[in-house]
Amino acid sequence: MFLGRVVGTVWATKKEDSLQGLKFQIVKKVDDKLRLKSDFAIAVDAVGAGAGELVLCASGSSARLTSTTHNKPVDTVIMAIVDQAEFTEE
Amino acid sequence: MFLGRVVGTVWATKKEDSLQGLKFQIVKKVDDKLRLKSDFAIAVDAVGAGAGELVLCASGSSARLTSTTHNKPVDTVIMAIVDQAEFTEE
Amino acid sequence: MFLGRVVGTVWATKKEDSLQGLKFQIVKKVDDKLRLKSDFAIAVDAVGAGAGELVLCASGSSARLTSTTHNKPVDTVIMAIVDQAEFTEE
Amino acid sequence: MFLGRVVGTVWATKKEDSLQGLKFQIVKKVDDKLRLKSDFAIAVDAVGAGAGELVLCASGSSARLTSTTHNKPVDTVIMAIVDQAEFTEE
Amino acid sequence: MFLGRVVGTVWATKKEDSLQGLKFQIVKKVDDKLRLKSDFAIAVDAVGAGAGELVLCASGSSARLTSTTHNKPVDTVIMAIVDQAEFTEE
Repeated sequence: MFLGRVVGTVWATKKEDSLQGLKFQIVKKVDDKLRLKSDFAIAVDAVGAGAGELVLCASGSSARLTSTTHNKPVDTVIMAIVDQAEFTEE
Repeated sequence: MFLGRVVGTVWATKKEDSLQGLKFQIVKKVDDKLRLKSDFAIAVDAVGAGAGELVLCASGSSARLTSTTHNKPVDTVIMAIVDQAEFTEE
Repeated sequence: MFLGRVVGTVWATKKEDSLQGLKFQIVKKVDDKLRLKSDFAIAVDAVGAGAGELVLCASGSSARLTSTTHNKPVDTVIMAIVDQAEFTEE
Repeated sequence: MFLGRVVGTVWATKKEDSLQGLKFQIVKKVDDKLRLKSDFAIAVDAVGAGAGELVLCASGSSARLTSTTHNKPVDTVIMAIVDQAEFTEE
Repeated sequence: MFLGRVVGTVWATKKEDSLQGLKFQIVKKVDDKLRLKSDFAIAVDAVGAGAGELVLCASGSSARLTSTTHNKPVDTVIMAIVDQAEFTEE
C-alpha cells in the first residue's frame, strides 16, 4: 500500500455505468517526512476520507476487494484513514 | 487510476482476434497542473473519448472490468471522461 | 498497453514445461517520436511479429488472455502489430 | 519480491472492515548493500516482523495469498523474515 | 518478463508456511548489453538456476503459474534459463 494525502477531487459525468456514485479522490504520495511528492493517483474512496487527510491506498486487483469497489474497473482505493504514521528507525 | 489526455490513436490490422473493433487511444499522463508529461500509455476506449479530452484510466486486471474489455488482453482502459479535476490542497 | 519495437529474441532450452513452443521477443519501448528508449521487456509473441516491427504489448494478468499464453507464466504479450501510431495533439 | 527493512508502523482506526486486526508496517526498500533507500511501502505483517528486521515482501494479488491477508484489500505483505541475504556475484 | 542474472540467495527460516522448500534467488536486471543494473528482485526459482546464470523472470499473478509457485504468496519467478539473448536491431 502507499501512504498519501487527499489533495483534490475528480468529477466525471460520462463514465462506465458501474462507476456511478463513486467518489474519485486525488491522492498525492508522501515521503518519509509525510511531505507531498509530485506523484499522484486517482483513488476511489471507500472510507469517507476528506480533503487534507492522510490515507492508505491499495492498488491493483486488491483495490476491488472493498464493498464499494467490488467488480468495478477501479485500480486504486482509499481503504483506511491514517491516525498516525510513526517512523521508528531511519 | 491515472489522469491523462488523449493525444492520438493506434491502428493495428493484425492482432489477437478478441481485439477486433476496439479503439486504441494514446493517452499522455498529466501532472498536477494538467500539463502533459512525456510518459504515455495505449488504452482501450470504453466511453467514447475524443482527441484532446481529459480522461481517467484504470490499469491492470481492473482494465478488463468494462463491457468493452471483458476477458480481453487489455491492461489499460479509459473508463471516464473528466469534467473537472480540482486540486484543493497543495 | 505499451508501444514498442521488436529488437531481438531470447532462446531458452531449460524452462517451465508450459512455455514450450513460445517465442520470446525482446521489445524496446518507444517514445512519442517512436524512437527507441533504453527500457525493454521480454514478451511472448501471439501475432507473428518480426524483427523491427512496431508492436502493442499487454502486461500483467491480461498478458495471459490470448490463446497462445492462456494459463502460462507469462506477464507480457505482443497482441497486435501496429500499422500506424498517430499523435494528433501535443 | 522485494527486500526491505521495517522502519515504522501505521495506525488507522477508520478503515475497511476486513482490515481489523491487521498490522501495517512501514517497509523501506534496501539496495544491494542492504542500505535503506528512500522508497517505502506499507505492508501487512503475516509473520510477526519487528522494527528493524530485514524482510521479504510480496506485492500485487500474491499479497493476498497468506492466511492473514486472504480476500482483503491488501497489496503488499511481509511473508518472510530474512536470516541472510548473500550477494555472491557482482 | 525481464532479463536478469542470479547474483545471490536469500535465506529465511520464519516465513509463511506455504513457502517451505522454495529457493529465493536474488536477480539483478540487465541492460541491453547484458550488464548488471543496480535494480534487483527476489525471485522463486522454478527451473534450477545457479549463481551467475542469465534468466527470464515473470512477475505478478503470472509468477504463480508454475508447479513450484502455484497458490503461493510469490510475485516473481525464474521460469527459464537463457541460452542466448540476441539483440538484432538497435
